[in-house]
Amino acid sequence: MHKGRLEAFSDGVIAIIITIMVLEIKVPHEKDHIKDLVPLIPVFISYVLSFIYVGIYWNNHHHTFQRVRSINGPTLWANLHLLFWLSLIPFVTGWMGENHFSQWTAALYGFVLLMNGIAYSILINVLIRNGGKNPELRKAIGSDTKGKISVALYLIAIAVSMVNSWISFGIYILVAMIWFVPDSRIEKTMNSEYTETE
Amino acid sequence: MHKGRLEAFSDGVIAIIITIMVLEIKVPHEKDHIKDLVPLIPVFISYVLSFIYVGIYWNNHHHTFQRVRSINGPTLWANLHLLFWLSLIPFVTGWMGENHFSQWTAALYGFVLLMNGIAYSILINVLIRNGGKNPELRKAIGSDTKGKISVALYLIAIAVSMVNSWISFGIYILVAMIWFVPDSRIEKTMNSEYTETE
Amino acid sequence: MHKGRLEAFSDGVIAIIITIMVLEIKVPHEKDHIKDLVPLIPVFISYVLSFIYVGIYWNNHHHTFQRVRSINGPTLWANLHLLFWLSLIPFVTGWMGENHFSQWTAALYGFVLLMNGIAYSILINVLIRNGGKNPELRKAIGSDTKGKISVALYLIAIAVSMVNSWISFGIYILVAMIWFVPDSRIEKTMNSEYTETE
Amino acid sequence: MHKGRLEAFSDGVIAIIITIMVLEIKVPHEKDHIKDLVPLIPVFISYVLSFIYVGIYWNNHHHTFQRVRSINGPTLWANLHLLFWLSLIPFVTGWMGENHFSQWTAALYGFVLLMNGIAYSILINVLIRNGGKNPELRKAIGSDTKGKISVALYLIAIAVSMVNSWISFGIYILVAMIWFVPDSRIEKTMNSEYTETE
Repeated sequence: MHKGRLEAFSDGVIAIIITIMVLEIKVPHEKDHIKDLVPLIPVFISYVLSFIYVGIYWNNHHHTFQRVRSINGPTLWANLHLLFWLSLIPFVTGWMGENHFSQWTAALYGFVLLMNGIAYSILINVLIRNGGKNPELRKAIGSDTKGKISVALYLIAIAVSMVNSWISFGIYILVAMIWFVPDSRIEKTMNSEYTETE
Repeated sequence: MHKGRLEAFSDGVIAIIITIMVLEIKVPHEKDHIKDLVPLIPVFISYVLSFIYVGIYWNNHHHTFQRVRSINGPTLWANLHLLFWLSLIPFVTGWMGENHFSQWTAALYGFVLLMNGIAYSILINVLIRNGGKNPELRKAIGSDTKGKISVALYLIAIAVSMVNSWISFGIYILVAMIWFVPDSRIEKTMNSEYTETE
Repeated sequence: MHKGRLEAFSDGVIAIIITIMVLEIKVPHEKDHIKDLVPLIPVFISYVLSFIYVGIYWNNHHHTFQRVRSINGPTLWANLHLLFWLSLIPFVTGWMGENHFSQWTAALYGFVLLMNGIAYSILINVLIRNGGKNPELRKAIGSDTKGKISVALYLIAIAVSMVNSWISFGIYILVAMIWFVPDSRIEKTMNSEYTETE
Repeated sequence: MHKGRLEAFSDGVIAIIITIMVLEIKVPHEKDHIKDLVPLIPVFISYVLSFIYVGIYWNNHHHTFQRVRSINGPTLWANLHLLFWLSLIPFVTGWMGENHFSQWTAALYGFVLLMNGIAYSILINVLIRNGGKNPELRKAIGSDTKGKISVALYLIAIAVSMVNSWISFGIYILVAMIWFVPDSRIEKTMNSEYTETE
């Protein structure tokens, strides 16, 4: 029950974040030809990328809290801390899209993704350290290889952005793919867990 | 329980989509006569149409997930994919409304509806293929005639928009009506299902 | 369970409506004296009024659905119809506030309130007619005197707005008070119902 | 069950409030250097402060309603009253941020925080007076020392803002810290309560 409200609040905030990003794609005024949408393409691409990232975070949040039995005060703040960095994604998405993935905008985008990654690790750690009451989660997370690789890749992307921001952009797509591609082992555990009738 | 959070997140996103569309109807500044609202009529009409479409999607989502017992990882992504295309409806609604249903705007509106229709079919298929665990849903969907007719009509509407976009607009109304008019067979099944006391 | 999702979706939409109204109170740029907020007073007053109205609708929705046992397809649409008219409140609130409660703006505000009142009556009727499965609700609503008085007052307010829109404004406050002041009979029934431990 | 919907609606409104504040951080147009973000720093700082405040309110709301067994009509309105003052936080945050914490903007920010504090006290009192049905809450709140200190500090901050608004800003940070730092006694009670398995 208690967990339920943290999930509901997070769902609300993430739902708003994923949706208000689309407001950055401004309707062109007094222009109704399909060519008038061309300038919006970079904004659209950065929207798609961020939509996938926020979607990944929601999926992971969902998977993680399915294994959580016990939460405490620090959990609430670790979760709010994650939501804070997620809430900055619409801003950096809009900035990067409007400026065609230029170096500083791509670097800041990577920085916000990096902080989200770190915030997620903190949340996981707070949940695991919580008096040993979430053993299932500890087992499922394991050594969190994906999380560590992501952080390393974000750091590379930020550094590289000063040289060529398109490489950074490629790295962001790569990290998204790492998370998107289903992890067969987890999926198998999931499949049985998900079934409500079992 | 697991299904519950997917439903809650979808409800949140759809609630935001259906509501932020109204922000495209901008308050006219320093104009307080009823005549000053006349230029807003096309924007208003496209709002009404899109409100009904998003309402239909919410209703169908609600009906579909009532019959779902088991979800898995691909379900989450198929659902996010649907939410992505739904999230583009406010943009195409505003563009079409501001430009009085001109040809390209009507075509793009149809394209987004088409992609929503396809995304919904994918979601349904992912749910049905899910290890044979949603037999009720398979039976209820049947051959999905309505879905197939809709896709065909969207394609016609997009093609026709280059000739006369008002015909496209009429087709969008027609498709909405097809979904709006209650399917007596389903409704009968529903009535008994809905009753919580039985 | 089924009722739950309709409630959750309505909560989401109403929460967004009540909150986006505040976006009409625009931050004055490069003006930081308290006097710079004076022009915002009418916008603020209309916000307060609309906040109370939307709050009343949420309260009534909450009270009504507590007594609902059975919903069906038409219920979903009657509910969406109500949400549609509620979604127009931010627009008419902004228009009336910016134009200092001038005649047409006050009339349109009244018209949207009127349509909300009618939409609510339709929703109640759909719920009551639903195969006799909501007897509790029928009893609680009774002859719906408050609803009928409200509709009459809205009509008067719309007519009067052409003469003096401040009288209309007063009538809107009056209607809000009628709903705000607790109905001791209902409250008594509620008190026992609300207690979860009984 | 009944409590659940009040919680869900509050979660929705608070989620929107905490997220729309970020919309005040406007994407700079045609400026893509990191230096172009410097003017946004005060807006960002005020966003961080307000995010923490709204987070504190959500946490407290969550903690409070965990101990609530019985709600009634006045509870709904006392809760809406709190949500009203919370909904004004984005406006005062934007105003204060854009004007670099100048005196009037800092005073108004303090005033809105003050009203939120008062609204929260009213809500608590309504819940406690509710026919003696929430004894757990009464015990947990005790003499509400934190609440009283906060109100006193807000009043000082408002008065001081006319002299030096940075002191006011420091006081707002101080109050946030008072609430943020976990109260070990409550936390201990919480830890056992939170555990769903016990």
